[in-house]
Amino acid sequence: MVTEMEPQSPLHTAVLGLPAISPLDDSLRDALRLLVDGKAKPPGSLGVLERLAVRLGTIRGTTRPGCERAALVIFAGDHGLTEDGVSRYPAEVTAAMVRTFLSGRASANAFARAVGADVHVVDVGVAGQLPAHPNLVAAKIRPGARNAAREAALTAAEVDAALRCGAEIAGRLADDGADVIVLGEMGIGNTAASALLMHRLLPAPLDDCIGVGTGHDPEGLARKRAVLAGAAARTPATEPFAVLCEFGGLEIVAMAGAALGAASRRRPVLVDGFIGSVSALAAIRLQPAVRPYLIFAHLSAERGHARLLDALAETPLLDLGLRLGEGTGALLAVPLLRAAAGLLNEVASLDEVLSGAI
Amino acid sequence: MVTEMEPQSPLHTAVLGLPAISPLDDSLRDALRLLVDGKAKPPGSLGVLERLAVRLGTIRGTTRPGCERAALVIFAGDHGLTEDGVSRYPAEVTAAMVRTFLSGRASANAFARAVGADVHVVDVGVAGQLPAHPNLVAAKIRPGARNAAREAALTAAEVDAALRCGAEIAGRLADDGADVIVLGEMGIGNTAASALLMHRLLPAPLDDCIGVGTGHDPEGLARKRAVLAGAAARTPATEPFAVLCEFGGLEIVAMAGAALGAASRRRPVLVDGFIGSVSALAAIRLQPAVRPYLIFAHLSAERGHARLLDALAETPLLDLGLRLGEGTGALLAVPLLRAAAGLLNEVASLDEVLSGAI
Repeated sequence: MVTEMEPQSPLHTAVLGLPAISPLDDSLRDALRLLVDGKAKPPGSLGVLERLAVRLGTIRGTTRPGCERAALVIFAGDHGLTEDGVSRYPAEVTAAMVRTFLSGRASANAFARAVGADVHVVDVGVAGQLPAHPNLVAAKIRPGARNAAREAALTAAEVDAALRCGAEIAGRLADDGADVIVLGEMGIGNTAASALLMHRLLPAPLDDCIGVGTGHDPEGLARKRAVLAGAAARTPATEPFAVLCEFGGLEIVAMAGAALGAASRRRPVLVDGFIGSVSALAAIRLQPAVRPYLIFAHLSAERGHARLLDALAETPLLDLGLRLGEGTGALLAVPLLRAAAGLLNEVASLDEVLSGAI
Repeated sequence: MVTEMEPQSPLHTAVLGLPAISPLDDSLRDALRLLVDGKAKPPGSLGVLERLAVRLGTIRGTTRPGCERAALVIFAGDHGLTEDGVSRYPAEVTAAMVRTFLSGRASANAFARAVGADVHVVDVGVAGQLPAHPNLVAAKIRPGARNAAREAALTAAEVDAALRCGAEIAGRLADDGADVIVLGEMGIGNTAASALLMHRLLPAPLDDCIGVGTGHDPEGLARKRAVLAGAAARTPATEPFAVLCEFGGLEIVAMAGAALGAASRRRPVLVDGFIGSVSALAAIRLQPAVRPYLIFAHLSAERGHARLLDALAETPLLDLGLRLGEGTGALLAVPLLRAAAGLLNEVASLDEVLSGAI
């Protein structure tokens, strides 16, 4: 129910008390470009890595950006939409996968170890009970979003709380020394909610935003389309905050908040696949200043992702046919950021090499 | 001069005494596919990483392949072709960059640190003198290949020595515990030599194999094309070993030997960009059994590379616009291999997750 919300400008985050985000410094960008061009290599020969180095330095506000410590935050939440059969898996799988993250045995854990990232798991809205665990941030706002096919998924207060939860966690990780924030999610049904969000926030025709998610046969996909068409027909909302209330996803909203929080601390945000990018889109719509802090890590195989990235004029770093979520694709881009930082911090200049100083 | 060489079959490596390479085990591949399909994720949702996991296990001959220790070997050598202006940089830069590798301040060093790989530098044919250094393998066969525009770049004995040098070094690294061998090179003029090799070994029209290398203006590129056309016109050689003698590149031949040596020890070989792929092509032509051990890491921006990969029906893992060499692109794929190994070794099965065993 959004009746308590007034339509808001993109600066709504200020109203929410979310952290301010600094614009990037053009003169620092120019200095970083000169620095990269002067390194001991043919100009331009490190392609995307050169642009990434400039971007990383500009985000961090320094010509010597650290990139050692990467923190993956996985936000987990459930979706009432699953009652109507939008996913091939039951909602209980969300809690089961959270337990798997905590045991260190999910794909995200394995990938995090492979790239040297810490893993933090946040229950922002899992339907089932989860045992206390030292690696679990228990921040449940409600046990799953309501069924968006029938009613608004979240109240304004719940969206506000989820945004703040994400922002606070990302801010705390940055304050504790994380150089890069990697965002992941777990939530059965969340490609369905993301399709609705993309449809209204981009905007784009709903059908272009719907894919097979974790996997659907033609019948399952047709059911997902019908349920989402019904949900979209229920409300004409287009204002970003109201759209988040209508279609929800506590984990999706919390990821958007985390992006805002990370950007407010001048940390790059590695955005994962379809759901991650939809949460990034929500963050951009709430606060456009977050945009240059978002690094889109990979092109997901989920149908709506390519269109979303196209509309944002973003070229992802990787294209590996992933469609798992959990932050797995974003994690694989961490070494690219580290290599870009290494280019700035460790590589000699061509002058040093040619003058025999080395 | 190749008059001492008879035309040889692809099994010429056996004649050379190079190590035997085992074919991969189809039944193990099937077992690995089942294992990956049973992991706690929607089937196929890790895309390329799933195929990489199967490939890594099949190469290593186990369902639990290690991938901790990655060793980059940079082979360095000079090219007489530079006398005729095929590169925008003078040949002295080869030795200067080798000193930079040894000081740990080249892009390859920074990227190796970023991904946790060791760096080994081999002087297999640098024209200038290099100081002794604990990290330098001094294995100079001759001070640079001869000018292929005027005469055969290498004798059969020199090609044989370079192949053995590469094979021995890769074999030793594998025996010392390297799980994956990453191949890099440094050699001013080596995109020119590589163009000639690709032209004859693939084969492909010479012009399609020539790019700007470290960077050329239109005049420089026209000069490179003319010099290489002259070199190609000098000899009709097409037999692989003879082609290596004619157009050489001690570092290119040594990389081919290293690929053969790594494969003989059942280690995956991460192939870098254009020059690395041409050396991989040479290895394939000498010994087709090496093929499944070669993992093409990235698509280089150097012109001939896309065509070469197309002809080999290989899809590289990354596309980041790199064209530096040194193994930089191959290094960036190391974390992908580690993540693939992690999928096999660390991720729970879906049965474990759904049964509540976790």
